[in-house]
Amino acid sequence: MPGIDLAVSTVIFALRPCADGAARVWLPLVRRTRDPFAERWALPGGVADLDESLSATAARKLFETTALQPAYLEQLYAFGEPDRSPTGRVVSIVYWALVRAEQAEASTVDDNVRWFEADALPELAFDHNLIVDYALWRLRTKMEYSRIAHAFLGETFTLSELRQVHEAVLGKPLDPANFRRQVESSPAIVRTEQHVTGGRHRPPRLYRYDADIELVDNGPLSARS
Amino acid sequence: MPGIDLAVSTVIFALRPCADGAARVWLPLVRRTRDPFAERWALPGGVADLDESLSATAARKLFETTALQPAYLEQLYAFGEPDRSPTGRVVSIVYWALVRAEQAEASTVDDNVRWFEADALPELAFDHNLIVDYALWRLRTKMEYSRIAHAFLGETFTLSELRQVHEAVLGKPLDPANFRRQVESSPAIVRTEQHVTGGRHRPPRLYRYDADIELVDNGPLSARS
Repeated sequence: MPGIDLAVSTVIFALRPCADGAARVWLPLVRRTRDPFAERWALPGGVADLDESLSATAARKLFETTALQPAYLEQLYAFGEPDRSPTGRVVSIVYWALVRAEQAEASTVDDNVRWFEADALPELAFDHNLIVDYALWRLRTKMEYSRIAHAFLGETFTLSELRQVHEAVLGKPLDPANFRRQVESSPAIVRTEQHVTGGRHRPPRLYRYDADIELVDNGPLSARS
Repeated sequence: MPGIDLAVSTVIFALRPCADGAARVWLPLVRRTRDPFAERWALPGGVADLDESLSATAARKLFETTALQPAYLEQLYAFGEPDRSPTGRVVSIVYWALVRAEQAEASTVDDNVRWFEADALPELAFDHNLIVDYALWRLRTKMEYSRIAHAFLGETFTLSELRQVHEAVLGKPLDPANFRRQVESSPAIVRTEQHVTGGRHRPPRLYRYDADIELVDNGPLSARS
């Protein structure tokens, strides 16, 4: 009797510059080498392992294909429509994570692993276009009420760097003066006494996130792997 | 070779009065009739069905045991630690929903189905205490930035009714004047020109939620079952 197969996949976002110089959201995809959907691009992942937690499987599969090791993976959603795979029922538990541009640069890239701009994807295997759209929507929603932009930045950052992250994620330019006002009234973002080092006449001030506010607050699940 | 079994469970919250008259968060549980955890209470649910979407299975199992039909079910989380069931690997996709007190009153109650106060549960089967804690955390978090309290109320409601919902969910009394100020500055809650009907000298005004704001915004998944 056929059963339900369980798979684990991961959406990893990074901000990387586009041809026009502006940063955009990108993600790595893996080319499928067999049917169904042979030759189509797909999210990194694979079959769930009997002895491993779901997040450990997600992290391992991701590392095996892309050499990426994000600082954390968060569960996104379980996709389980009966018709999402043409060869039998597969429920996919999808994780997501953010990595900084330098980490993205160091990831594997070959004929079968490539980075794509999230807003300009080809037709992917299974329902992976829907999954990426949902992950983008969560990223955009979360930017509004959490310190998630931090995952794309270093320990300290200028207002202009922070604004570029928001612009890349939201896909639209933001007014610098309004943005500065919003940031300066946010309790989560703290002004430091440091400035960017270098020969500039008026070096920009550095900011940091308040470390007392959790990057990802999963409530009672925070302590779990 | 043993595989991974897939289960679907649901946490349904309702606000119901306690012995002291105050409303509290309650949920229905089902007594297990066989091992593992025979006689322990557990969330309504069961094995995923090969031909049915996960949310349809969740709704069907819930109806079969409790006769409850919530207006919507939202996916909460997939629980999949390797050791969460003593008899083999089971991944549970957990849904959650809110129902109004009248709906809760009409649900099945017998020797094997009973409502419990969410903050005073016995030791449940599997990791179901952890699941309920996580669902409560999500409910409390969501109250802060969505119109989720609406699910516990009728079309229109008084400020005092709305405050009682917030007090029940947060588990603490709120200052009526502060609460009124917050509500009156919220764009999601609209003052109507109606008042509670009855013989009172100063009948309280009725409010409603702005219907243009989605109760549950799942982004690109909104249209899915």
